[in-house]
Amino acid sequence: SKTVSRLGEDWVYLAMLGVVMAIISFVMDTGIGTCNKARTWLFFDLNQHVALQYFAWTILPICLVLFSAGFTHVVAPQAIGSGIPEMKTVLRGVILKDYLSFRTLFAKVVGLTASLGSGMPLGKEGPFVHIGSMVATILARTRMFQSIYLNQSRGMEMLAAACAVGVACCFAAPVGGVLMSIEVTSVYFAVRNYWRGFFAAACGALFFRLLAVWFQGHETLKPVFKTYLGSEFPYDPLELVVFAVIGAISGLVGAGFVLCHRRYVLWMRGNKQLNAFLQKNRFIYPFFVTWFIASINFPFGLGQFIAGALTTHDQVVTLFSNFSWTKSNFTVEEVTVVKHWINPFTGIFVNIPLYMLATFFLSILASTLPVPCGNFVPVFKLGAGLGRLVGEAMYYWFPGGINYYGDRWPIVPGGYALVGAAAVSGAVTRTISICVIVSEMTGQITYIIPVMIAVLISNAVAGLLQPSLFDSIALIKK
Amino acid sequence: SKTVSRLGEDWVYLAMLGVVMAIISFVMDTGIGTCNKARTWLFFDLNQHVALQYFAWTILPICLVLFSAGFTHVVAPQAIGSGIPEMKTVLRGVILKDYLSFRTLFAKVVGLTASLGSGMPLGKEGPFVHIGSMVATILARTRMFQSIYLNQSRGMEMLAAACAVGVACCFAAPVGGVLMSIEVTSVYFAVRNYWRGFFAAACGALFFRLLAVWFQGHETLKPVFKTYLGSEFPYDPLELVVFAVIGAISGLVGAGFVLCHRRYVLWMRGNKQLNAFLQKNRFIYPFFVTWFIASINFPFGLGQFIAGALTTHDQVVTLFSNFSWTKSNFTVEEVTVVKHWINPFTGIFVNIPLYMLATFFLSILASTLPVPCGNFVPVFKLGAGLGRLVGEAMYYWFPGGINYYGDRWPIVPGGYALVGAAAVSGAVTRTISICVIVSEMTGQITYIIPVMIAVLISNAVAGLLQPSLFDSIALIKK
Repeated sequence: SKTVSRLGEDWVYLAMLGVVMAIISFVMDTGIGTCNKARTWLFFDLNQHVALQYFAWTILPICLVLFSAGFTHVVAPQAIGSGIPEMKTVLRGVILKDYLSFRTLFAKVVGLTASLGSGMPLGKEGPFVHIGSMVATILARTRMFQSIYLNQSRGMEMLAAACAVGVACCFAAPVGGVLMSIEVTSVYFAVRNYWRGFFAAACGALFFRLLAVWFQGHETLKPVFKTYLGSEFPYDPLELVVFAVIGAISGLVGAGFVLCHRRYVLWMRGNKQLNAFLQKNRFIYPFFVTWFIASINFPFGLGQFIAGALTTHDQVVTLFSNFSWTKSNFTVEEVTVVKHWINPFTGIFVNIPLYMLATFFLSILASTLPVPCGNFVPVFKLGAGLGRLVGEAMYYWFPGGINYYGDRWPIVPGGYALVGAAAVSGAVTRTISICVIVSEMTGQITYIIPVMIAVLISNAVAGLLQPSLFDSIALIKK
Repeated sequence: SKTVSRLGEDWVYLAMLGVVMAIISFVMDTGIGTCNKARTWLFFDLNQHVALQYFAWTILPICLVLFSAGFTHVVAPQAIGSGIPEMKTVLRGVILKDYLSFRTLFAKVVGLTASLGSGMPLGKEGPFVHIGSMVATILARTRMFQSIYLNQSRGMEMLAAACAVGVACCFAAPVGGVLMSIEVTSVYFAVRNYWRGFFAAACGALFFRLLAVWFQGHETLKPVFKTYLGSEFPYDPLELVVFAVIGAISGLVGAGFVLCHRRYVLWMRGNKQLNAFLQKNRFIYPFFVTWFIASINFPFGLGQFIAGALTTHDQVVTLFSNFSWTKSNFTVEEVTVVKHWINPFTGIFVNIPLYMLATFFLSILASTLPVPCGNFVPVFKLGAGLGRLVGEAMYYWFPGGINYYGDRWPIVPGGYALVGAAAVSGAVTRTISICVIVSEMTGQITYIIPVMIAVLISNAVAGLLQPSLFDSIALIKK
């Protein structure tokens, strides 16, 4: 009887965890969206004066990042950074002081909303794993669920489920979220515990999408980065070779990202004078970094070469678009996509590499800001750019499709972008479950076999060269 | 250096495992397809004499089942049955004599081809897990890979990967295969071991589909049960309630299936006189069971009420079809689907329940045949029927869609069939990874959230009532 009542408690607890996380995620998304819209609106509204536009374009991110940095520093410095390396430690039984407190939760949620609202190339996946764990801990302390954390191993199981919910609510990817949280945080994993993660993640993802239906006027539940790639003839078997090559390149890029990130952080730390100066003037570093990144993205300056006017979400959605950017005739809707990736001076074969370079270095720079932030989405964008580049080149070289089918089945560069995005983020996070996350994110599973091939290869290549980004951060912190 | 060479060996070994399994699966599929075609061809060719048609319809399955029973009995009786309960035991460290020998592999492959070629309501998933493990063991004994099995824990890791490949090559579902094999066979699971299963499963699924491109004239890699459901508005959020109800009913049906299966097997065993008689006359039981099932499926008799003229694959594909069977006008292609599910006397609301009843009892009966056979696909069909029934009823009650959208977004009964199939097979096998398998099987991930809801509920309901089918079989064998 006690077990049954406990089981009942479990279900209620896990469902509540999912629902609370969905609400947090949704509210944060709304806040982030408002900030992003405000910036674009200001930018377009001040169209008489380029200087004013530049001022508006840079001042809003600077304010938001400085607020985020100040707020987290005052309320709870534990909220700074990703959270996945720390959760890995916690799940191995180490107790980090105040790491799962309400104060830290508050700082992380507010700080993350501000730092993502600033439009810096930052992600929210890692912080969401941390937020999920904090919500789980706080929920378990309420009177209703008090018995859950009495047993320490049960507590760990709940925390593992919470990490899954974190990822699930970030991308509306319940299955991939469970798998990724297992890969990222666990060493051994109890199958008995599997359904907990799934149940909580399903509740979270469902509710997260339902909120979009109720409050944003979506007609029905939609994936986060919905794609419209054709499923009748997605790729020729011969193209699998190209996908494998993308995997290998992605492995190198991913390892390079981890290496550069660590080198830069260690260089900053080693520089003692600079360090002492920045410690005293806490706002100097965030100010200059944000100003620099925002300036580079300024749409009338360098930003026109790197799709600076688009938000992160729109960058990914356009990179995944279902038509080639090198074809000759565009529809009106297609022009609204392509215009961000070309300009009077250069075409996509210059702009996409520039975009990749900028994303690579600027996201490393941004991730050193003392704010809550993740690295997943920037890396995902980097990979999407790589894939789109290869796909467009393929379309350019084989305008009638790679095989003898004539122009019946042309090459789909959006599929390449998908494969590249999965491969690079798989290489950096050293996870295979990214295959499932990408499918759930886009609502299409058509490319699962190319994605798996590329992800396995990129994981293997990156594995020979560098540790995963999370392990690399943990190494730095030691 | 030794570790590196070993790692290299791993990759080669796992790739070979995948490729060999893909070839076995493809050759077996070809054999099964030929047997099925021969039966249909005979049936239609003898269209002057109903008696001759009946004879042809029943004699071929009887011969195949008797051959399968005789062959496995003589060559290796260990090949009889599913294999998942036994693999669970083996992976816990128990050594079953000759269970992974070449002789058993041979008996299982030949016997399974014959028993599935007979058109009996049997599956191949369980046997494929067993076949995968045997191939892995035999490969590891070759000189090239001898060192792999020297270390016992490494051997177990390889076996776990082999189980994944088995499932993956069965449904071309690499990700779901890995997850299902983990859920079904493991208790604790090493994350370090994860990539092995994925790599081998990806190789297997890729090669399995490539063989179809090379030898069957497929234009590109296609899912096994490809669906064409619309993804723009797959379901109204309100329909989620109906999906949850399907989940609850599926849980009851699944538990009922496990209960009836065990009751029937125990009743057969308890009946000592009958048992002694059947032991002496080994062919009597297979003969009568096959004759009975084939007779019921005879397309001019009862078979017209239960889509008896369709093969298992076509039954599933038609149940997943993307239009409603109760609408008023059908295209020519749609008629070729619907004509199997209606007849001059009864409509689909009589035929689908009859189909479910027949599948339920006949597949329990068939699974007691002393041949290599699984239960997954029959249960999957049962669920697809249940879902289609609910979906058609919903379409009938809400002809203009469930909400205020008018007839813009009608109800999609094929989506309901998908959800039902996943929920019932999830309840019987007690797995959640079926969500992923269904997505990979159909090539569409649109219904992942309804599927997850239904599967979680059906798992919970079935979990309260009965053990999983595999555990139930293990209980019987004790």
